[in-house]
Amino acid sequence: MLPTILDLSSLHAAYQSGLTPLDLVETVIARRTASNDPAIFITPTPDEHLRAAARDLMARAPEPNSLPLWGVPFAVKDNIDVAGLPTTAGCPAYAYHPGTDSTVVARLNAAGAIVIGKTNLDQFATGLNGTRSPHGAPRSVFDPDYISGGSSSGSAVAVASGLASFALGTDTAGSGRVPAAFNNLVGIKPTPGLLPNTGVVPACRSVDCVTIFAATVGDGVAIRKVAEGFDVADAFSRHARPISLPRTGLRIGVLERAEREFFGDAGVERLYDQAIESVKALGATIVPFDYGPFREAAALLYEGPWVAERLAAVEGFHVTNAADFDPVVRTIIEGAKGKTAVDAFNGRYKLEELRRETDAEWQKADILLLPTAPTTYTVAEMQADPIVLNGRLGRYTNFVNLLDCAAIAVPAGFDTESQLPAGMTLIAPAFADDALAPLADALHRAAASGMGVDRDRHIPGQSVAFVPSDDGFVPIVVVGAHLSGMPLNHQLTAPGGRLLKTCRTAQDYRLFALPGTVPPKPGLIREPGFKGPGLEVEVWLMPPDAFGRFVQNIPDPLGIGKVTLDDGSAVSGFLCEAHAVRGAEDITHLGGWRTYLRSQK
Amino acid sequence: MLPTILDLSSLHAAYQSGLTPLDLVETVIARRTASNDPAIFITPTPDEHLRAAARDLMARAPEPNSLPLWGVPFAVKDNIDVAGLPTTAGCPAYAYHPGTDSTVVARLNAAGAIVIGKTNLDQFATGLNGTRSPHGAPRSVFDPDYISGGSSSGSAVAVASGLASFALGTDTAGSGRVPAAFNNLVGIKPTPGLLPNTGVVPACRSVDCVTIFAATVGDGVAIRKVAEGFDVADAFSRHARPISLPRTGLRIGVLERAEREFFGDAGVERLYDQAIESVKALGATIVPFDYGPFREAAALLYEGPWVAERLAAVEGFHVTNAADFDPVVRTIIEGAKGKTAVDAFNGRYKLEELRRETDAEWQKADILLLPTAPTTYTVAEMQADPIVLNGRLGRYTNFVNLLDCAAIAVPAGFDTESQLPAGMTLIAPAFADDALAPLADALHRAAASGMGVDRDRHIPGQSVAFVPSDDGFVPIVVVGAHLSGMPLNHQLTAPGGRLLKTCRTAQDYRLFALPGTVPPKPGLIREPGFKGPGLEVEVWLMPPDAFGRFVQNIPDPLGIGKVTLDDGSAVSGFLCEAHAVRGAEDITHLGGWRTYLRSQK
Repeated sequence: MLPTILDLSSLHAAYQSGLTPLDLVETVIARRTASNDPAIFITPTPDEHLRAAARDLMARAPEPNSLPLWGVPFAVKDNIDVAGLPTTAGCPAYAYHPGTDSTVVARLNAAGAIVIGKTNLDQFATGLNGTRSPHGAPRSVFDPDYISGGSSSGSAVAVASGLASFALGTDTAGSGRVPAAFNNLVGIKPTPGLLPNTGVVPACRSVDCVTIFAATVGDGVAIRKVAEGFDVADAFSRHARPISLPRTGLRIGVLERAEREFFGDAGVERLYDQAIESVKALGATIVPFDYGPFREAAALLYEGPWVAERLAAVEGFHVTNAADFDPVVRTIIEGAKGKTAVDAFNGRYKLEELRRETDAEWQKADILLLPTAPTTYTVAEMQADPIVLNGRLGRYTNFVNLLDCAAIAVPAGFDTESQLPAGMTLIAPAFADDALAPLADALHRAAASGMGVDRDRHIPGQSVAFVPSDDGFVPIVVVGAHLSGMPLNHQLTAPGGRLLKTCRTAQDYRLFALPGTVPPKPGLIREPGFKGPGLEVEVWLMPPDAFGRFVQNIPDPLGIGKVTLDDGSAVSGFLCEAHAVRGAEDITHLGGWRTYLRSQK
Repeated sequence: MLPTILDLSSLHAAYQSGLTPLDLVETVIARRTASNDPAIFITPTPDEHLRAAARDLMARAPEPNSLPLWGVPFAVKDNIDVAGLPTTAGCPAYAYHPGTDSTVVARLNAAGAIVIGKTNLDQFATGLNGTRSPHGAPRSVFDPDYISGGSSSGSAVAVASGLASFALGTDTAGSGRVPAAFNNLVGIKPTPGLLPNTGVVPACRSVDCVTIFAATVGDGVAIRKVAEGFDVADAFSRHARPISLPRTGLRIGVLERAEREFFGDAGVERLYDQAIESVKALGATIVPFDYGPFREAAALLYEGPWVAERLAAVEGFHVTNAADFDPVVRTIIEGAKGKTAVDAFNGRYKLEELRRETDAEWQKADILLLPTAPTTYTVAEMQADPIVLNGRLGRYTNFVNLLDCAAIAVPAGFDTESQLPAGMTLIAPAFADDALAPLADALHRAAASGMGVDRDRHIPGQSVAFVPSDDGFVPIVVVGAHLSGMPLNHQLTAPGGRLLKTCRTAQDYRLFALPGTVPPKPGLIREPGFKGPGLEVEVWLMPPDAFGRFVQNIPDPLGIGKVTLDDGSAVSGFLCEAHAVRGAEDITHLGGWRTYLRSQK
């Protein structure tokens, strides 16, 4: 029996227990038919095509779960090409029939995922609310009076209502995050350029991102890893250069009081306070930062020249088909008409100046914690004042792509009165996508708000996000003053090192307390044939360039050789020149430097 | 007695022999007075100011050569602020009186250099020829009928005629390179953002670079190192991240025949062939590459939206003072008027697409070798057809900043008929500034064309460019299989390592031939108190990330500790675990691994 929300763990377990992809698509078809929101899809994948896709998968990869996303149903925002289904971008007159999948869809299909349909959106991905579509407005899964958020409206509702395990959205101003907030979902907003835009209708081509709506952070990261990767066909695609964030002493930037604007929504305000408390309880340090320059950058997206990118994206079509646009979308896009190339460059200068100002704020905080959206509105309210209210929704999201950040939006609980959900977003500089995930996952768990429409669902125990990734980091065995909490540990954490594990060396090592070292240090020496207890050590992971500088700064008689661990692996780590331990106290029997230091007190 | 060309080595020697900065400025004053080109300066530093500057320096730093640029005279293009002198950008009506030095000038002054005046330029740095100025056209130092090149016209002529040791220019399309070519000078065109633009009148702010005209590559690099470095006040300033280039198997990209366009100038064509032969003789591999996408990017600078940056830079002034512009400059800048923000973004998309195409060409070649300018013209010819002929001059330079490259232009010899010089430019991706220098220096030496007006001057023997710079590379002492010519030496050279020196360890080391190692390896062990011959070792420099990976891959019993050299310094290097040398042959008496290997034959 499948749960309401089709998270990857549940689906994986169901397949392991005998469910087939053919069973799964029948469930999807039934749920799609039973759905009480008629505005989710623009083009659902026809039932027979779904069954054919399931059969194809079972022929191609018969073994259950033998592909990373074996039989995982997903929905695709209708500005992302899926071969065989029209791409409309929410504008019927714009429709075209792509001959091939977009790069991201092709990768997900290759990994075993199955497209269940093309979803509704604010036309041309212009909006954060979900009402700007001739196909109707999808609704919050918690209250049909309320907006779903947009522009990736149908994608979010599809996942939150259990029609798909995940969905693709796009995000320029916040379209992959705001609908996640309003539907109790995770929104993975990758670093710009990490997921290719080949086969995606542009909104603002220089900053558009494909995003993932998922039930958990672990799911979202796992799916992102399938979809991401350089694509030579996309001129804005980038090679990933993952950065790490400190594991201890993590500093989380939060809004100063004066910058907290919820437009009267006390519920979201309270949930923001609660998220801050959660982050504190998780061991992070809270630091207020100046949101001013971020807010100014956010304003540039619609008030500055970037709106011209929206016109550039549809220029020929706009010339011939202006009457076919949604009136609000048309008004926004036509805002580009008076803007000159000089305006465009002046906007870029302003952005670079603001980037410099935000750089200073990033010196204070490793991650920013912001409300995803400050409040929400009913469909009727939004339609009555479509531009002003939409602008409010983007208050905390619009800057993120312009300033080249990665973000993960997570559920943050429910307003006790309205019973509507709110979301919080963790934001960090480019290529912190993986580094953000553990805290995002922990914050989602702390909110205890379930997933999507199922507020009571427990988040599966082992999050994918916590598996250390092979991102080029090099391991280093530390023995003494560099252990966690010891005086030189900062030499590992400052450049982004992270603790991999605590373990012991092989038995044939001796440890000596080196006389006269400041801070006190031990020396590790191998003596083949000796059978001791093995010494307690920590293995840290470091970026290779930081590791190089680190080795460079080690004074004699210490150095970096290979240390054999109790599992037989030989890992770079601290050794000592033999001459330096002559006459030094042999502390091998104590089993490690920590025990020795305690014995000295 | 000072030579005609005031290169840093000559000046340094003269100061060492008793010349004073006061003597120097008298020479500069005398030479300035005697100069037969009246168009070099817009505002020369007044004689009394020069004398005061010399006295100030002698009071501040009395010891000769006690600052990096102690008493070095330099000229400054008149779009770069020098406190106390007006900045005009070649447009008298635009003049303002800066209260502070530009960042680059402040840094050079602090290092002991002395400003001798503000030099003429194509107005608002718009041009590559030097004739677009109300202050007249500076002339080639080799023929007064011919253009000096521009826009940094006066700066180049000042250095080439011996008035200054170096000069600052700026370079958007090629303004720091073309005048170098026409006056037999080196033009250092740094990676965009490496030298700050604070206090520089913008041309195209997103791609402008401050440049250096110098007599030799060594001089230019040394001066660049004083002027460079992040400046928080310049939104386009960047932190340097030096990259290295291979030392062996270096691949030099040259124009395919079909892309060689010299506009009928057989002299430059021949000199290009000659430069290719020189590079081959220096051991590099010649590879033809497709210049097409670079040429298309070059065309964008004036034909695309970037011309709007020129209007953005002077927009208010243009509104009120259009009649004060040079007519040609005005025509070019007003070309921005019809361009929309949509055009600007479409231009950016085109550039990103071309960047992707040029990325593929960079897979073929490490460095591009191009003519700096394909030909030259007389002042009369240029004035008769100012836009078309100017466009030709930028054929091989215009793309360089748009595509984020570093470049060094060097003298390449003289046309045997016209007796005019030509230049060649070496170009590599961002932050290859240092990595380009050794080949650029070698190419200049191979041309045997002297410096500036002095065609017979010998280039000083020890080029500064070859002195290892403190560019973040880390030194590593190698003892055995990693020595030059040994089986594992490629582990140092492949990632861009370079040999710093050969020397010996301190006396208290022993060397052992490790039994059973493949390839054969020695083990170095310190034994305090032992007095041996010291062991012959090599010190290599490696990029820190490559060093990190290198250390990571060293198998036990070897590792990296600190090795004390015969000069007392302790440098990271190969050591051996003591247990591994038990029973091994002690080869210390042979003085090194090379001698041991020879003894085995």
